[in-house]
Amino acid sequence: MTPAAPASGKHELEEGTRLTPRFGADGLVTAVVVDADDNRVLMLAHMNEQALTLTLDTGIAHFWSRSRSSLWKKGETSGNMLTVHEILTDCDQDALVLRVHVAGDGVTCHTGRRSCFYRRVRPDGTLEPVAQD
Amino acid sequence: MTPAAPASGKHELEEGTRLTPRFGADGLVTAVVVDADDNRVLMLAHMNEQALTLTLDTGIAHFWSRSRSSLWKKGETSGNMLTVHEILTDCDQDALVLRVHVAGDGVTCHTGRRSCFYRRVRPDGTLEPVAQD
Repeated sequence: MTPAAPASGKHELEEGTRLTPRFGADGLVTAVVVDADDNRVLMLAHMNEQALTLTLDTGIAHFWSRSRSSLWKKGETSGNMLTVHEILTDCDQDALVLRVHVAGDGVTCHTGRRSCFYRRVRPDGTLEPVAQD
Repeated sequence: MTPAAPASGKHELEEGTRLTPRFGADGLVTAVVVDADDNRVLMLAHMNEQALTLTLDTGIAHFWSRSRSSLWKKGETSGNMLTVHEILTDCDQDALVLRVHVAGDGVTCHTGRRSCFYRRVRPDGTLEPVAQD
């Protein structure tokens, strides 16, 4: 499907029943990827209209890689593709939550960990590892 | 505390033990706010260095409001302040997860709902409500 044009008013945006994503000046919305089973945040990524359309059409998460400036079918190389269980939009439709199941060995982060969020920030600004399961 | 200057290398950024946030060209990092009890994603916000420092120093979430161009102590008016249980950083330190407890009646979204992510996107691009508890 192709997302509809932006909603005309705040009420329609917040209470409406049509996805009218508010892509930023860079053409992107933020996508928070969480595990569908336990809601653990796995990674943060970005989607342009094509990536969002492909994700909705195929049920497999696609993103826009800002570093490579290219469409990115996450896990195409590693085997850790993300099957979308559910997509949620926020009130003003500039952010999405993707609740996913991770294929393969369940790794999402390029460092080999389950989640990109593998370090806790202490009040003094130092970091310590958090459990990944 | 004041976050340290950006780490010099990729390895230090990903495996180091110092928070060296990579603020974007707009001076912001993205903050995903989740409920510390069940990991439900509540809202997405942004932090500049001042907001992050205040959050680390006080244990209460502060953000940068892009719409108002001002520091934003979330819940200061509504009473729904966010007590930070834990802050996580991602591999390349340009995004944070704040695991919080919401004060007052537990509402985070300005529409009066617990979470800003109160609608599910169907494959055809229409939206339907999701349960908020």
